[in-house]
Amino acid sequence: MISNIYTMGASKAHFLLLGILVTCMIATQISAKYEYQVKYLDVPLDHFTYVNETVTFKMRYLVNDTYNPDGKGPILFYTGNEGDIENFAQNTGFMWEIAPKLKASLVFAEHRFYGKTLPFGNASYESPKHLGYLSSEQALADFAELLAEINPSNRSTRGRPVIAFGGSYGGMLAAWFRMKYPHLVSGAIASSAPIRQFDTDCGIFNQILTSVFSVAYTKECSQNIARSWDVLKNYSSTADGLKVLKDKFKFCGNITKADDITGTFFDYLADVYGNLAMINYPYNSSFLAPVPAYPVREFCGRLAQNFTGLELIGRLQEAVSIYSNYTGQTKCLNIDSAYDDNMGTSGWEFQSCTEMWMPMCSEGSGKDMFPKKPWDDKKFSDDCFKKFGVRPKKNVAMTIYGGQYLEGASNIVFSNGLMDPWSGGGVLRTSNNNIKVVLIPEGAHHVDLRAEDPNDNGSVLVARQVHLQNIQMWIKQYRKRMA
Amino acid sequence: MISNIYTMGASKAHFLLLGILVTCMIATQISAKYEYQVKYLDVPLDHFTYVNETVTFKMRYLVNDTYNPDGKGPILFYTGNEGDIENFAQNTGFMWEIAPKLKASLVFAEHRFYGKTLPFGNASYESPKHLGYLSSEQALADFAELLAEINPSNRSTRGRPVIAFGGSYGGMLAAWFRMKYPHLVSGAIASSAPIRQFDTDCGIFNQILTSVFSVAYTKECSQNIARSWDVLKNYSSTADGLKVLKDKFKFCGNITKADDITGTFFDYLADVYGNLAMINYPYNSSFLAPVPAYPVREFCGRLAQNFTGLELIGRLQEAVSIYSNYTGQTKCLNIDSAYDDNMGTSGWEFQSCTEMWMPMCSEGSGKDMFPKKPWDDKKFSDDCFKKFGVRPKKNVAMTIYGGQYLEGASNIVFSNGLMDPWSGGGVLRTSNNNIKVVLIPEGAHHVDLRAEDPNDNGSVLVARQVHLQNIQMWIKQYRKRMA
Repeated sequence: MISNIYTMGASKAHFLLLGILVTCMIATQISAKYEYQVKYLDVPLDHFTYVNETVTFKMRYLVNDTYNPDGKGPILFYTGNEGDIENFAQNTGFMWEIAPKLKASLVFAEHRFYGKTLPFGNASYESPKHLGYLSSEQALADFAELLAEINPSNRSTRGRPVIAFGGSYGGMLAAWFRMKYPHLVSGAIASSAPIRQFDTDCGIFNQILTSVFSVAYTKECSQNIARSWDVLKNYSSTADGLKVLKDKFKFCGNITKADDITGTFFDYLADVYGNLAMINYPYNSSFLAPVPAYPVREFCGRLAQNFTGLELIGRLQEAVSIYSNYTGQTKCLNIDSAYDDNMGTSGWEFQSCTEMWMPMCSEGSGKDMFPKKPWDDKKFSDDCFKKFGVRPKKNVAMTIYGGQYLEGASNIVFSNGLMDPWSGGGVLRTSNNNIKVVLIPEGAHHVDLRAEDPNDNGSVLVARQVHLQNIQMWIKQYRKRMA
Repeated sequence: MISNIYTMGASKAHFLLLGILVTCMIATQISAKYEYQVKYLDVPLDHFTYVNETVTFKMRYLVNDTYNPDGKGPILFYTGNEGDIENFAQNTGFMWEIAPKLKASLVFAEHRFYGKTLPFGNASYESPKHLGYLSSEQALADFAELLAEINPSNRSTRGRPVIAFGGSYGGMLAAWFRMKYPHLVSGAIASSAPIRQFDTDCGIFNQILTSVFSVAYTKECSQNIARSWDVLKNYSSTADGLKVLKDKFKFCGNITKADDITGTFFDYLADVYGNLAMINYPYNSSFLAPVPAYPVREFCGRLAQNFTGLELIGRLQEAVSIYSNYTGQTKCLNIDSAYDDNMGTSGWEFQSCTEMWMPMCSEGSGKDMFPKKPWDDKKFSDDCFKKFGVRPKKNVAMTIYGGQYLEGASNIVFSNGLMDPWSGGGVLRTSNNNIKVVLIPEGAHHVDLRAEDPNDNGSVLVARQVHLQNIQMWIKQYRKRMA
């Protein structure tokens, strides 16, 4: 998931446009480990009003029926999140691995306004006239319509059991899909789903992030980062200093003023640190960017002692290249976005500016490794209005989905890697016996949904066992009720 | 609830206009037995998109805090249905009677586009541009927003327990409110809520209706009705015959052609029979119209032997006057609508033409007391399009709410009077232990939500006890979880 802590800076007004291009260019580099048919279904633009009731668009979804020859097995259904669905299909190996055991079909549904599911084509990102139809409730209704189409139930026929899966925002959607449409979904595996992020301390993300960078190699790593902001700021304050930074980091774009560093570059660095923690998997991966195994450890290995001044800058550059240029193919450092083309950053920004309002802040002063940056409600809202013509509806996600309170929910596993900064908004405990909590102490962002790897930690193997046991139990429950 | 079997006749194109006037004129005659404050809350016109996100309207709601002096008691919350909320408040005595026992507040929330809750004022019924915002999902989100406002919950504070109540479509909403927003609603009493009417035999309503008229007094009653259609049709086929009917029934409007009888008047009669069965309470009442105790018995008492020809016409007129003129104040028979001003017939027609698609038919030939009228899907859709510019979305209610399948639901009591024609679409059995079914053999439409009366049947007294026990259990559960 994309954190919104620094991405809303007014200095990045060009971000939106860039985001649009990025989102429309789409995914060219997703490595195709798994195979599927690509299909499309016409779904209503607006499920909940009848003002323009005939307007529909093509939702993309991916299907694999290989393991379900008789057409009677369960459906493993990925509730797509803010990016190209093919990327999620390729990075959710767990579903592919259990499908043969369960004789299940696989379906990956793309979220509206991401990937190739663009309701207004190239004009989709005109906001709010078009982008205004981007909301989680509409996306869930798209998924429901897809299931009603491919797996119909009525009084004489009962469809096949369906299990929802998702990671990050996709995990939130999987959990909410089960909560809101239990007749369509027998259970949900919600991995790293911060459904409580709407109502938590704004600093929790950065506190967890700091501790990840403190324990990965030596404690000096987070201390160096904490010191680096002032050093960078000092260099940015003079033309000579800016030139030094340009030479060191080899920025792609023009760096002409202090704000290019203290605005754009600071945002980029914060995103990189967050992303490194999220994808801190025990093996090479390329989910958000190609990185080595344990990329935070690799990163921190280059900042293992106390550095200062120009040496700190140099070491930092080397460390950042773990994320920005692990392949060695990157010619220059593009600090406009820390995400590759598969992630719909602009769409997610819009969602953060409407219902996915998740305040974030940093406290500095040793409490986290970032400069102090209190949550500025007014500025966030004003920036949203400037970019998208909308303002956040702060409480709507809690009102609609429940936030802290899950008493009506059942058949959901909430799993969280405790080394994932998003775990601060996750469901780590519950008094509801009908839902399960799985903690993965060494785990990063939705690592349990990824394919098995010889380097996997024991706790993630256990998590996957718990998932499978629950899935089998839900399918059995469902079939028992049908009988 | 308003059945749509005959109201969609093309001959009644003036119905829409009339409905608009009726809906805007509103309720002047609701007898005020119970007292409350009238309040308004600004709620978003569209909860699920961000296209015109700042547009709001004033939702009306009624509050009584008399029985809850310390402000800590539960909230008994009526989920308003297709009419003026004051009428539902006055006709839901059960809530008023249990409030003192539970030290509870009472809240009655008006459904958008009904009563005084008109999002676009007098222009609200311009469809689909304005009326398109009338949907059950939006109404539930209005209710959620109201509760979030008057009973906020967040991670540090937990709101008071809330119990939802509703009868008929309001009962569907109460059940769905608990299903979709369990964090806001601890339980629901859903009385006469035909949530399975979307997926049932189209003839069931008229079959139950026929049996009500067969057992109320003598079996000749439904036989006379069954014969009356042909007699009326014969009279309508000549100018002299039409004059006879005009003299007998004293129609308010002009009767100039056969279709005024076989179209408009047949629709009216079918509505009257349905309404009589719905309000067949064991005491005088004035919910849909002022009627005596057991109005079906009164009606059938006037058709207790086999009648034919002109005598049948005369007896029928006398019987119908039980409904149309029990007060003796009615100067002429207005057959344009069988509903008084408090019910939003045009709004409900629109809902039937979009998501509340409930096919109805009659089989004739002794199977029911109506002329054979198969369900004509195309005609219904075309009529909808002519009137409102929309066509039904047949499966959407089942996809969104689950239809037959309630496996995820909990803390709902579904009660049904078995003499209520709507019980055919109700929840009369379930394999889900977390929901309860209450059958009231002698009961009419949501009789259990009405105030106690010395003439109440034993089964309705039992139903109210079951309701109260469940409500107390839900409140206890909720408070235990909070502790």
